[in-house]
Amino acid sequence: MSLDSFFHPNSVAVVGVSENTKKLGSIILQNIIDSGFQGEITGINPKSDGEILGQKVIQNITKSNTPFDLVVIVIPGKYVESVIEDCITNKTKNIIIISAGFKEVGNTALENTIQKKCAQHQINLLGPNCLGAIFPHANLNASFSDGQPKPGNICFVSQSGAFCTAMLDWASEKEIGFSHFISLGNKAGISEIDILQSLADDPTVEVFAFYLESNTQGKNFLSLIEKISTTKPIVILEPGRSVKAAAASSSHTGSLAPNFKVLETAYAEAGAIQVFSMREMFGVLQLLSTQPRKSYGPQTAIITNAGGVGVLSTDLSELNHLNLEAPSPQTITKLKSVLPAEAGLTNPIDIIGDARADRYANAIEILKDDPTIDQILVLLTPQRTTEVLETAKIIHAASQSSDKNIVSSFIGGSGVQKGIQYFEKENLPHFNFPSDALKVMGILAQYESRKRNKSTTLPDLQILTPDKEALLEKIEDAQSQGLKSLPQELVDQILDCYQMDKPKSQNFTKIEEALTFFQSIDTGVLKISSPDALHKTDLKGVFLNIDTEEKFMAAWNNLQESIKISGFKNASIQVQEQILNAKETILGINTDPTFGKVMLFGSGGIYTEVMKDTAVGILPIRSFSKLINQTKIGEILHGVRGEKPRAIEPLIKTMETVEQIVTDFPMIQSIDANPILVTEDRAVCVDFKMIL
Amino acid sequence: MSLDSFFHPNSVAVVGVSENTKKLGSIILQNIIDSGFQGEITGINPKSDGEILGQKVIQNITKSNTPFDLVVIVIPGKYVESVIEDCITNKTKNIIIISAGFKEVGNTALENTIQKKCAQHQINLLGPNCLGAIFPHANLNASFSDGQPKPGNICFVSQSGAFCTAMLDWASEKEIGFSHFISLGNKAGISEIDILQSLADDPTVEVFAFYLESNTQGKNFLSLIEKISTTKPIVILEPGRSVKAAAASSSHTGSLAPNFKVLETAYAEAGAIQVFSMREMFGVLQLLSTQPRKSYGPQTAIITNAGGVGVLSTDLSELNHLNLEAPSPQTITKLKSVLPAEAGLTNPIDIIGDARADRYANAIEILKDDPTIDQILVLLTPQRTTEVLETAKIIHAASQSSDKNIVSSFIGGSGVQKGIQYFEKENLPHFNFPSDALKVMGILAQYESRKRNKSTTLPDLQILTPDKEALLEKIEDAQSQGLKSLPQELVDQILDCYQMDKPKSQNFTKIEEALTFFQSIDTGVLKISSPDALHKTDLKGVFLNIDTEEKFMAAWNNLQESIKISGFKNASIQVQEQILNAKETILGINTDPTFGKVMLFGSGGIYTEVMKDTAVGILPIRSFSKLINQTKIGEILHGVRGEKPRAIEPLIKTMETVEQIVTDFPMIQSIDANPILVTEDRAVCVDFKMIL
Repeated sequence: MSLDSFFHPNSVAVVGVSENTKKLGSIILQNIIDSGFQGEITGINPKSDGEILGQKVIQNITKSNTPFDLVVIVIPGKYVESVIEDCITNKTKNIIIISAGFKEVGNTALENTIQKKCAQHQINLLGPNCLGAIFPHANLNASFSDGQPKPGNICFVSQSGAFCTAMLDWASEKEIGFSHFISLGNKAGISEIDILQSLADDPTVEVFAFYLESNTQGKNFLSLIEKISTTKPIVILEPGRSVKAAAASSSHTGSLAPNFKVLETAYAEAGAIQVFSMREMFGVLQLLSTQPRKSYGPQTAIITNAGGVGVLSTDLSELNHLNLEAPSPQTITKLKSVLPAEAGLTNPIDIIGDARADRYANAIEILKDDPTIDQILVLLTPQRTTEVLETAKIIHAASQSSDKNIVSSFIGGSGVQKGIQYFEKENLPHFNFPSDALKVMGILAQYESRKRNKSTTLPDLQILTPDKEALLEKIEDAQSQGLKSLPQELVDQILDCYQMDKPKSQNFTKIEEALTFFQSIDTGVLKISSPDALHKTDLKGVFLNIDTEEKFMAAWNNLQESIKISGFKNASIQVQEQILNAKETILGINTDPTFGKVMLFGSGGIYTEVMKDTAVGILPIRSFSKLINQTKIGEILHGVRGEKPRAIEPLIKTMETVEQIVTDFPMIQSIDANPILVTEDRAVCVDFKMIL
Repeated sequence: MSLDSFFHPNSVAVVGVSENTKKLGSIILQNIIDSGFQGEITGINPKSDGEILGQKVIQNITKSNTPFDLVVIVIPGKYVESVIEDCITNKTKNIIIISAGFKEVGNTALENTIQKKCAQHQINLLGPNCLGAIFPHANLNASFSDGQPKPGNICFVSQSGAFCTAMLDWASEKEIGFSHFISLGNKAGISEIDILQSLADDPTVEVFAFYLESNTQGKNFLSLIEKISTTKPIVILEPGRSVKAAAASSSHTGSLAPNFKVLETAYAEAGAIQVFSMREMFGVLQLLSTQPRKSYGPQTAIITNAGGVGVLSTDLSELNHLNLEAPSPQTITKLKSVLPAEAGLTNPIDIIGDARADRYANAIEILKDDPTIDQILVLLTPQRTTEVLETAKIIHAASQSSDKNIVSSFIGGSGVQKGIQYFEKENLPHFNFPSDALKVMGILAQYESRKRNKSTTLPDLQILTPDKEALLEKIEDAQSQGLKSLPQELVDQILDCYQMDKPKSQNFTKIEEALTFFQSIDTGVLKISSPDALHKTDLKGVFLNIDTEEKFMAAWNNLQESIKISGFKNASIQVQEQILNAKETILGINTDPTFGKVMLFGSGGIYTEVMKDTAVGILPIRSFSKLINQTKIGEILHGVRGEKPRAIEPLIKTMETVEQIVTDFPMIQSIDANPILVTEDRAVCVDFKMIL
């Protein structure tokens, strides 16, 4: 899909203009004119054939001899289909359907028809049910927005029209500009993926921002983000955390890996900046729109003229994962030379309540030159001698000549208003409260850290089994029988073929053979194995901790007795190795509707759900160790307080193998291995379920 | 301390007035005049003897024949002492020292002298190093504030002058008023406790708000909060969470119970509303200042004209512990009758983008009457047909006639400005972003829930020991020897006297006696007991899991052998009961510098620090079960997935006894009992340390 002519049309037609300037069609026409569009503008109105708003009007698209680059449709939904036909005749390249009345009110068939027609004729379609699109650098506002957004560096894409209007209104007040402003509507054609792909190399775009309500091609979106986010920050607000969590909690394993956790992991690993509220999105965009472009990082310096506010900000820095280390000794010496004796030189730098603008200037100048500092927050409360506007100007000058992100928070009301207005006019980041500033600085610092520490290579899985074809056949067989999960026997077979570590186990009818086997293991479990004995514990037919021949004999005889009493046929006794001194972990695979297969690792056993100690990763897993280390059980496996470390390498091998299994057999939708017992030298799979 | 004359003085003198109206003394004099003070006003200036700003000026306080109710001192710190002498002569009742130059710059001696003199002569002292005090209802502004705050229902008390100025500036913009506005400065005299006590029953105060940097009389403060917060909300911002956490983490057990956790528990249990940023404080005060007074609670209804913003708000409601249940069926029926077919009737109520003011009115009116709803949040984004100001007026009217808290968030910039300005003028709570609104609504809902569920009675501990006096003597003896912790023998003795459950244990030299004892226990541990054998495990002198006579004999003989080889004198063999199938818990007592003794409970054993699964409570503990249930180990003790529950009652008994022990012997500063092993019928103390 090439969107070149969409973003840079030479001709635009608006279907649905009228003499009534309050109607949407005319508003859009007016917006196109007002935005200074340099190409040809045509209005379409079946009843008119003259001029509206000074523009040529024709009765029908087909009346034009040349194809339109862009047609904007603003007529009732039911008439849209025939206009699409006209567009096909006209060989129109791009269409925006503003009109509502499609999928969002249940008219799915109509939307599908239109979608198919556009696709067949290679027409790019935006909408339906959207606000339109604005390309300020191309002087085109093909939307019914109020007012014209400034040109800027943000490409904003939203699936919600209301979010669009709120964003435009807010941005115009904060003097924030856009490279592109696109309302996706029902996404029948152009999606966030098409936009990201087409504008990845567009020099006018420095930042992407998405408000998304559904995200169907998750994997494609992720790989694009992965590629682009190394040079252009991508901000994403995707609501529905609570709704998704509620839906996810309906399934058992699901409740351990709610979708939003997958979402967060996915976006974070790909390098996106995920935000969770409008305040966060607006705040992050405020920083990212600042010129010259800034670098962000966790090392933060805070300058304040109020000690208490400084202490409060220290608390909030910690909450937001920002480091407030003391400046370098050289910086402290320099600060000492310009600040009064009572000033606080550790971080926050307390320049005392009587600080005038020059003292702010001196402190900022020195911190700006300290290479250990990534970001600076300037706090100001209105005191008797405070010079609000002057200080704002000083911050502006410092920001212009530094690649450090310098953020301000002037706290109060009318007493600091002049400074705030100045910041807004100059498009400098200002937040009414330090908590908001630090929140946003923290979000960007985390983004920066992740970018710096990104692992670009994937582990090279080469776990092969000679029996893949045979296994595949059996699994497909189970599938064709309509089974929901693989039979235990087949699961065991798969584990064996992939050389997974399981407890040694064998079924016996003769005591001599059983005893020989028992002597090869340390401690054993004895139980009845019979097609008739489904609920073994109900029969008291399980003996644990069998570690002497004496106990073994007693257990064997008891079970034989039970078999006799119950009248089980074909019964045997299973002797299984008991794994001692092990830590219980859980390993799972789930299939996320958006991102495909995900792996879950964490504290296992019966306390899994109480502990809620799990981490998730999307396949392919970049680093199994990282997944392990994100959990408390991971910390424990490494050895706590003198304990010997547990077998991490075999555990990783197990995780790799599980990834290989679901890669080799993609029809396995989920795996629930709980517990995997990790001893000092083994990772043993005890209970393994595979669901189709 | 009676502060009546402080809050309602009939005469005020300002020491340090001059002809220069830019000097602080004159600014304060001007503020007193401007605030409309009805009593006598006198200026003091040693060089003057006429009038300044139209007020009588005398050279010295002692020149007055009558005692001043209030003297405000605004001269350099070094001259203050002699003015205090003059005040003593004058029999002045109350003094505010604005001047700095005391403890805050190291002049502790000077401050102590002044403090002592005032105390000796029953003079109430505010400051030094403060902004002053403002009592709008008494028409007195004895501060150097910019402008006059409105009278209102908030008593605001701050230890930071800068916080005072920021608050005043913000409040004047938001049209929020105060009953009292007090800058504490160095707190040499009047403290937050005095103010809380004196104004508890003052009808002009409906809300208390404190910004505190230090809080030395924690227990007294708490018991006042406890009493007063049932009728008047008390909001507290106390920074230093990170600093305190850092300090606390220096000690081992401390790291498990960082002081801020104690602080949070203390304030929450007493019924205070603790906030963690200026934004939160300002936001909470905005709601609490609304008239008529509102009730808060977790059941929240959200009305929105933008679906996506509604979904976002659902996420944020969950984060802030607000319940967004669907309205009652009756309410839904009513809503259906006034809203368009496409409206969303579950919560959030989506009244669709084309909603005009009347549709907002209809929806609000219906939700207002639903008794299951506690709070309402009205969201508005500026759409084409949105009537911003009209909608604001409708919300105002609804708020006036309802005790439900109705909060608005009009999202955008200039497009919603008229509504926001209207809210500010009418002192109605408005937040630029739903996230801010929901945060504050959540804080108040939690406050309300705690108030509703407050347990007013304390458990009646009656755990007595006949040996208290004898034990006391021994503990005092250990103390006088300079011991830092009690010897293990004494600890065991205390545990025995209080009938705490310990593993059965006895030392033996004869195998027959030892075997008889062993037969009385299930499983045992055998180890060498000798003054020479300090590190038993080094000698491999410990045998665990001894559960048969055979194993017992083998272990006994082996240990005897070891004793022989090592040449230990007076050695015996300790046979101790081994507690099996137990959950490891930790129980601790710490002494907090502010709130005294606190109890900690949580996951014990060697993973305590990894798990970080602990809860704290201040003694006396109101509910031991609640403490247990706050932890994950508590959940596990109750029995998870078919496990038998562990012995909660004996555990509670143990906790009660530990509280009794530190109550009986207050010199025991801390206790570290890790683990306490909780089986199905016992709570057994295995390792118990008592620190003096």
